[in-house]
Amino acid sequence: MTLTIGVDVGGTKVAGGVVDDTGTVLAQTRRDTPADDVAKTRDVIIELVGELAAGRAIEAVGIGAAGWIDASRSTVLFAPNLAWRDEPLREYVSTAVGLPVIVENDGNVAAWAEFRYGAARAADDSMIMFTIGTGVGGGIVLGGDLMRGAHGIAAELGHMLAVPDGHQCGCGRLGCIEQYASGSALVRFARAGARQEPDRAAALLDLAGGEAEAITGPMVTAAAQGGDPVSAEAFAQIGRWLGTSLADMAQILDPQTLVVGGGVIDAGDLLLGPTRRSYLDALAQRGRLPVAEVLPAELGNSAGVIGAADLARRI
Amino acid sequence: MTLTIGVDVGGTKVAGGVVDDTGTVLAQTRRDTPADDVAKTRDVIIELVGELAAGRAIEAVGIGAAGWIDASRSTVLFAPNLAWRDEPLREYVSTAVGLPVIVENDGNVAAWAEFRYGAARAADDSMIMFTIGTGVGGGIVLGGDLMRGAHGIAAELGHMLAVPDGHQCGCGRLGCIEQYASGSALVRFARAGARQEPDRAAALLDLAGGEAEAITGPMVTAAAQGGDPVSAEAFAQIGRWLGTSLADMAQILDPQTLVVGGGVIDAGDLLLGPTRRSYLDALAQRGRLPVAEVLPAELGNSAGVIGAADLARRI
Amino acid sequence: MTLTIGVDVGGTKVAGGVVDDTGTVLAQTRRDTPADDVAKTRDVIIELVGELAAGRAIEAVGIGAAGWIDASRSTVLFAPNLAWRDEPLREYVSTAVGLPVIVENDGNVAAWAEFRYGAARAADDSMIMFTIGTGVGGGIVLGGDLMRGAHGIAAELGHMLAVPDGHQCGCGRLGCIEQYASGSALVRFARAGARQEPDRAAALLDLAGGEAEAITGPMVTAAAQGGDPVSAEAFAQIGRWLGTSLADMAQILDPQTLVVGGGVIDAGDLLLGPTRRSYLDALAQRGRLPVAEVLPAELGNSAGVIGAADLARRI
Amino acid sequence: MTLTIGVDVGGTKVAGGVVDDTGTVLAQTRRDTPADDVAKTRDVIIELVGELAAGRAIEAVGIGAAGWIDASRSTVLFAPNLAWRDEPLREYVSTAVGLPVIVENDGNVAAWAEFRYGAARAADDSMIMFTIGTGVGGGIVLGGDLMRGAHGIAAELGHMLAVPDGHQCGCGRLGCIEQYASGSALVRFARAGARQEPDRAAALLDLAGGEAEAITGPMVTAAAQGGDPVSAEAFAQIGRWLGTSLADMAQILDPQTLVVGGGVIDAGDLLLGPTRRSYLDALAQRGRLPVAEVLPAELGNSAGVIGAADLARRI
Repeated sequence: MTLTIGVDVGGTKVAGGVVDDTGTVLAQTRRDTPADDVAKTRDVIIELVGELAAGRAIEAVGIGAAGWIDASRSTVLFAPNLAWRDEPLREYVSTAVGLPVIVENDGNVAAWAEFRYGAARAADDSMIMFTIGTGVGGGIVLGGDLMRGAHGIAAELGHMLAVPDGHQCGCGRLGCIEQYASGSALVRFARAGARQEPDRAAALLDLAGGEAEAITGPMVTAAAQGGDPVSAEAFAQIGRWLGTSLADMAQILDPQTLVVGGGVIDAGDLLLGPTRRSYLDALAQRGRLPVAEVLPAELGNSAGVIGAADLARRI
Repeated sequence: MTLTIGVDVGGTKVAGGVVDDTGTVLAQTRRDTPADDVAKTRDVIIELVGELAAGRAIEAVGIGAAGWIDASRSTVLFAPNLAWRDEPLREYVSTAVGLPVIVENDGNVAAWAEFRYGAARAADDSMIMFTIGTGVGGGIVLGGDLMRGAHGIAAELGHMLAVPDGHQCGCGRLGCIEQYASGSALVRFARAGARQEPDRAAALLDLAGGEAEAITGPMVTAAAQGGDPVSAEAFAQIGRWLGTSLADMAQILDPQTLVVGGGVIDAGDLLLGPTRRSYLDALAQRGRLPVAEVLPAELGNSAGVIGAADLARRI
Repeated sequence: MTLTIGVDVGGTKVAGGVVDDTGTVLAQTRRDTPADDVAKTRDVIIELVGELAAGRAIEAVGIGAAGWIDASRSTVLFAPNLAWRDEPLREYVSTAVGLPVIVENDGNVAAWAEFRYGAARAADDSMIMFTIGTGVGGGIVLGGDLMRGAHGIAAELGHMLAVPDGHQCGCGRLGCIEQYASGSALVRFARAGARQEPDRAAALLDLAGGEAEAITGPMVTAAAQGGDPVSAEAFAQIGRWLGTSLADMAQILDPQTLVVGGGVIDAGDLLLGPTRRSYLDALAQRGRLPVAEVLPAELGNSAGVIGAADLARRI
Repeated sequence: MTLTIGVDVGGTKVAGGVVDDTGTVLAQTRRDTPADDVAKTRDVIIELVGELAAGRAIEAVGIGAAGWIDASRSTVLFAPNLAWRDEPLREYVSTAVGLPVIVENDGNVAAWAEFRYGAARAADDSMIMFTIGTGVGGGIVLGGDLMRGAHGIAAELGHMLAVPDGHQCGCGRLGCIEQYASGSALVRFARAGARQEPDRAAALLDLAGGEAEAITGPMVTAAAQGGDPVSAEAFAQIGRWLGTSLADMAQILDPQTLVVGGGVIDAGDLLLGPTRRSYLDALAQRGRLPVAEVLPAELGNSAGVIGAADLARRI
C-alpha cells in the first residue's frame, strides 16, 4: 500500500492529509493561511507536509489551490485569494520536502476526488463537476483523465456565459454563470427578496438581525431548511441557472455523470430539485436518449485533500 | 500504404472517396441522396463503396452522417434530414461490402479531418471545431482522441444556450447558439436588415430580385464580398455570437486550436474578423495567458470523406 | 339620446353596431372581410353602415381597424392583415354614407371601450390596456383622453423590447414583447412543451389529433382549463412576460388601472394569476406605494364596436 | 410680468433662482445641503427663498427634489439621497414663507423646463426626457401637461426592464435600464474596459493615476473627448441601451420630441451618435413614418430651478 499526502490551500485554512490508495484519509491536520505573505504560505505547506510525513513512507505530495496553474502543474500563475503570482511552488516545495510534488487547481482536484472515490466512483470514463462556493469552479474528467487544457486552465466553468449583457463578473465579462449560480448569487438573490418582501422573509431576516445586508449564505440555507419561502426561492433561482449550464455540458461533452459540489450543496434538494428540473427541461433529447444523472458530491471538505493526494500518486 | 474509403451522407448528395494514410483523396464519386427512402439510401452507399473499392485493397469504410449515432458507432438513432430512425447502418453495410465499417456524426468527422490533415494539423493533442452550415455542428478532439461522449452524442455545440428566452430552436429550447450563429441565422439577419433598410441593402436585394424573402446564404456572401453593408453586418452579427461560444469553449476545455468551418467560412474575414474580436473580448485572461487561435477550416467539402476514411483506419 | 355606429374591421369579419350614449349596443350585424380587395372592403363597410343606419338618427360613424392610422384619424397608412396602404378611408366612407367618420386603431378602440364602459369604468383619468390576440396591441388613456401620439401611432405596446436579441418579431426587431406574450407565443410555447413532454401533454395532444404542430390557441385554453399541465405552463410563460410589461407601464405612466384583454383572457386566472405575480414581483415599490390593479377586460368582442362608436360621438 | 422662485434640492447643493415668465433667471443663489438632517434641509430652503424674495413680488415657489412625491405634490414620500420620509414639505415651507408652494420630482421638473424653454420648446404638445446622471430619471409631457401618474410616481423611466435577469438594480429588480444607461454604468463599463485592455485605455488610466477603480465619470468624458477608444466605447455602450429605451418610448407614446439630459450629455456626440443609431435601428417603421428626433437638453444645471419656478406659476 502506497501513501501520498494531499494539501488543500484555501484562502483561510491550509488542510493536509495522508491518503492511501483506497482514498482513505489516515491522518490529517490544518493551519491558518497567511494569505498575504507568499513566503509564509509556502512555509506553512512545507511544515504541514513535514509533520504528516514523519514516520511514514510517503511517495509524493499533491497541492490543490484556487488559481491558474501552468500546464506542467508546477507554477501558480495567479491565485485570486493568495499573494501568489507566477509562483514556482512545485520546485520550492519539492526541494524542501524531498518528494515529488504536483500543483493542481482546486476545482480539478475536487472533481478528481469525486470521480475516484465519491459521487461519480461508478463512472469509469467521464464526469463533470461544478463546485458552487463563493464563486463557481469546475473539473472535467474524460477518458479517465483529468482535463487540464493546453495552457493548464481547463474547466473554468464559472465563466461560461449565462446572460448576454448580464450581471458584471469579477473577470470583466458581463453575465458569467458565476454571477447567477454561485453562493454569492444565492446571497444576492436572498437579500433582494428580503428587501422586497420583508414579511415573507421574516424567518431569514430574524437570523440576520433584521438587516437584509447582513444575510449570509449559511443563513439562507438554514432559513430555507426551516421553510422560509424567500430563501427557498433564492435556491431555486441559482438552481435554475445551474441546471442550464449542466444541460450545456451534457450536450457539449455527454459525460457519464454530472456532480454538483461546494458548500451550497449542503442545502440538498432545495438546490438539487430546481437544478434537475431546469436541466431536464433544457435537454431537447429528453425522453429519447439517456442522459447523465445529476448527483450531489459526497466527499465534502475532504475532496481537496483526497483528490490532491490521489493525483500525486499518478505523477 | 493502407487505403480506406470515406462516405459523406448529406441531405442531397452522397459523396465517397478512397483516402490514403496521408489524407490524400485518390479517387472519388458522388450520387444523389434518395433522402426519403431508407433502403435506397443504404443501397446508394453500398453501390458507391463497391465502385470505389473495385481493384483496390481497401481496409475499412467510414460513414459520416448528420444525426445522433449510438456510442458503439453502429446505429443511426435519428437523422434530421434522412428517413433513418434506429437504423443499424454499420452491420448492414458491413455485411454487404464485406469490410469493417464505422458510422460517425458529420460534425465529428469534419473535426477529425481538420485535426489530422487540415487547419489544426499542427495541434498534436486538442482542437475544437464549429461547423457553420444551415445549423451549427461541432467536434471535439482531446488527448488526441475524438470525444464521442457516454451516449455517443458529444459535441452538440449548436445547442449551447446563447440567449435565455431567445429565438426558438428546432430542438424545442429557446435561444440555442444555432439560432444566432448558423447560416440560417445569417439569412434571417440579412432579410431583416433588407426589409428595414432597403436602400442600404440595394446590392443584396438586387441579387434576390428585390424580394427580401428570396435572399439566400450565397447571396449574402456574394453581396458582402462586393461591399454591401447590410450583408456585412449580418456576418458581423453571427460572428459576434460565434466568438462568444468559442470563448466559452476556450474556458471550458482550453484546446490548442479552435477551428471554424462549414459553408459560411467561404466569407473569410467577413466572418472571422468579427468572430475573433468577440472571442478575444470575451476572454477575461486576455493579455495574461496564451489562448487558442481561431483558424478557418481548410478542407472544405472534402472534410467529410477524409475524416470518415481516417476514422475507419483506426477501428 | 344620441346614436352612433361603431365598425370593427378584422382580418376575417367586419362587425358593426348601433350604440347609444350608455355604451349599449342596440343593433348589430357582421359580414366576411374581403381582406385582399381594398375596394370591396370599403364597400362592405358602407353597406353595413347603410343597413344599420336605416330608420335611425345616427350622428357619426367610428371605424376601428388593425393598422397604423394617421394623426388626423383619416387615413390607414398600413394594415398588416388587409390590403390597405395609405387608404383615405375616412373621406371615402364619409362621402358614401353622408355622416362624419373617424378611423382609429383597433387597440386604441378597445382600450377606450373598456375605459368608458368596461373593466376600467371606475377610473376617471387613466388606464392602459394590453390586448392579447395573435399579436399584442394596446391603448393608453391619460387625463381622460385617448393617447394617439404625434404621428398617430401611440400605444404600439406589442413592440416594447422584452428580450435583447430574442425571438425575431415580424417588425424586424429581435425580442419584442409580442413574441413572448401573444396568442402566437402561447401556441409556440405549448407546441414546444408537447414535443418535449408528450406524455405530460397527453390531454393537449389528444385535442390536436396527436400532432404538436396542429395545436391551436383554443386547444391550449381548453386543455389548460381541463388541468393539462403543459398548457397551464404555456399560459404561465406568457403571463410572466406580460406581468413584466405591465410593471414597466406602471412605472412609466402610473395609471389608475391596468387592463388585459383579447381572446387569451378567456383563460381567466390561468393567465391572470401568473401575470399578477410577475407584475407585483417586478415592482420595486411593492408594499410601499399603491399601484394599479390588473383587471381582465369585460366587453370581449364587443369592445371594438362600442369603442369605435363612442369615439365617433366625440368628433 | 410675474415672478416665481424655483428651488432645486440636490444631494450636495440647494440651488434657488427667481424666474420670470420667459424662463429667464433674474437672480440665483446656492447653499450646501445638510443632507442628513431633515429640519436643517427645510430651513436652508426657507432661508434661500427668503433671501431671493426680498424686495421682489414673488407669486409662488416650486421645489424640485429627487424622490417620490405624492400625487397632490405636497409630501416627499421617499428621497433616496436625503433624510426625508413622508415629509410634508409643501405645507411647512408654505407656512414659513407665506407663499403657495408645490413640490415636484426632479426628473419631472427638468423635463418641464426643457419642454417650455429648452430643447423641446418647439414642441407644443408632447415630449419625453431621459435624465442621465448617476441614475436614470425621466419626465413625460403629453397634451401640454406634465404626467404625474395616479400615485405621483409617473416617469420612473430608469426602472424599465432592459435585460431580463441582468445586472441587479438598487430597486431590487434585475436588469433595469438604469444599470445600463446611467453615469454609474458608464463608469462600470469604462473600468471593466480599462482592466481588460490597460494598453488601449492608457489615456484614461493616466487620468485615474493608473487605477481602474479610481476612474470617475468626468475622467471618462475627458478621455473620450481626447480620443481614448476604451472611453468612447463605454459611451457607445450606454448609448446603445439608451437608444433602445428611447425607441420603446417612441412606440409607446409617440411624442413630438425626445430629449436626453443630465451630466452625461456633456459628452455630446460621443453619447448621442450611438444613441441615435440604436434608436433608429430599433424602430421598425424606420423609413416609413416620421418619428421624434432625439435632441440634447439645453438648460444644463439650470433646468431644475427654471422648471420648478415655471410649475409654481401654474398652481
